[in-house]
Amino acid sequence: MNKIAFQGTHYAFSEIAARKYFGENIETHPCHQFIDVFKSVEKEESRFGIVPIENSTTGSVYQNLDLILNSSVTVIGEVQLRIEQHLIANNGVNIENIKVVYSHPQALQQCSKFLESLPGIETIASYDTAGSVKYIRDNKFLHAAAIASRQAAEDNQMQILREEIEDNPENYTRFHIITKTAEIPDNADKTSIIFSMKNIPGALFKSLSVFALRDIDLLKIESRPMRGKRWKYLFYLDFAGTMREERCRNAIRHLEEITSFLKVLGSYKAAGD
Amino acid sequence: MNKIAFQGTHYAFSEIAARKYFGENIETHPCHQFIDVFKSVEKEESRFGIVPIENSTTGSVYQNLDLILNSSVTVIGEVQLRIEQHLIANNGVNIENIKVVYSHPQALQQCSKFLESLPGIETIASYDTAGSVKYIRDNKFLHAAAIASRQAAEDNQMQILREEIEDNPENYTRFHIITKTAEIPDNADKTSIIFSMKNIPGALFKSLSVFALRDIDLLKIESRPMRGKRWKYLFYLDFAGTMREERCRNAIRHLEEITSFLKVLGSYKAAGD
Repeated sequence: MNKIAFQGTHYAFSEIAARKYFGENIETHPCHQFIDVFKSVEKEESRFGIVPIENSTTGSVYQNLDLILNSSVTVIGEVQLRIEQHLIANNGVNIENIKVVYSHPQALQQCSKFLESLPGIETIASYDTAGSVKYIRDNKFLHAAAIASRQAAEDNQMQILREEIEDNPENYTRFHIITKTAEIPDNADKTSIIFSMKNIPGALFKSLSVFALRDIDLLKIESRPMRGKRWKYLFYLDFAGTMREERCRNAIRHLEEITSFLKVLGSYKAAGD
Repeated sequence: MNKIAFQGTHYAFSEIAARKYFGENIETHPCHQFIDVFKSVEKEESRFGIVPIENSTTGSVYQNLDLILNSSVTVIGEVQLRIEQHLIANNGVNIENIKVVYSHPQALQQCSKFLESLPGIETIASYDTAGSVKYIRDNKFLHAAAIASRQAAEDNQMQILREEIEDNPENYTRFHIITKTAEIPDNADKTSIIFSMKNIPGALFKSLSVFALRDIDLLKIESRPMRGKRWKYLFYLDFAGTMREERCRNAIRHLEEITSFLKVLGSYKAAGD
């Protein structure tokens, strides 16, 4: 049975996404932090890991993009999950009693309009959504609530005070499936790369030309500052095509001429709905 | 005397940056939230506002990019500030006593390595760095510290337990100066725009071509998901040149042919060191 490492406690969205991708016949391995997911995969304790990469409301999960950048793992799959957030409390607690709301920072951000509608509420960031439910249950808190999945409420036998409190119902998260050594899947149709550019005129335009000249569609591009190098940027780029295809390998070879750093994260099948 | 709105309490980094840009001869207007800065400028209560746009370690401040997108203000200036974060506590408190650290989420993130080195520390997100110093002073907390500027510690007559705790000394923040109605400054050399693309093949490449074809250098490009439109992206782009120049106006007109949305945020003088 495949063992899949994920960050959080059971019923975290990452675990729910792992079951969507692999089916029910898996063993899941909860990790405290994202870096522990990568370590578990690098040491081959877990055959695969699953990490959130981007949320349609809050944007990229930079922590995981950084970890992939510095890790030896390969991306071999992708899955996306509709994220429904619920306000969860101990039984007998009313919403009027709530003074503090615990959850993962991304979940708090996804529900910011709802939280602003509760006057005087304090929010406390915790490591994961499902873990914050367990935390308020274990502490028998009567003035606190957590934001997490329906499964986390059910598993802890707690009540849902308000359903679907995310600001936006189009709240999806994309996850990457990582592994230590893998062949490109036969059905792969997408590749993710990271690069930084040489300081030459028109460098960004030239770097996109290598794809346009070969009719390779770009699916996403995102820049972000390189840690420790003021206003130098890393580019995260997804394109349609795989490293099995000669035109894609040619594009990457061409791109190497104008980049100071380039890493292919992996070719995989793009997530469906 | 010009009145400048900023988010936070006195000695917040935004106020320090405002003095760097305008000099000492200004009146500053503290606002609770970023949106209040925009409202103060839109209502012409404050002639100018200053908001952080990007940090070299943690990336873009999306909240302000969103607010600029939806506001009628114009960007007319830019300033950057080296951000030195310090661990600040009430007098008589030792670092061993600290159980909780308060600060703005971005400051907590900029000091994440330092915070991880303190075992069992809880972090609580607050509205601003300087305000969290005032908060632990007013509450006479002996088990809490705040992360903020040296000026905030001095103003509150509190001690600095650890200096320069940011993960990376290359920790700079860029701020935009916003105003309601303004001419393009004579020394302007940079323009910021936001756009989204029509769903046409090679749209991103074509959108960058409009600049490359006119020898206009791109300074930055960043994409982020549009709220409520799954995997549709907004692009934030800075280029070298101003809307006073015909080649730049031509490039923007060309860009309009292939974008579904386009807004010019303003032309201004790029920040020096």
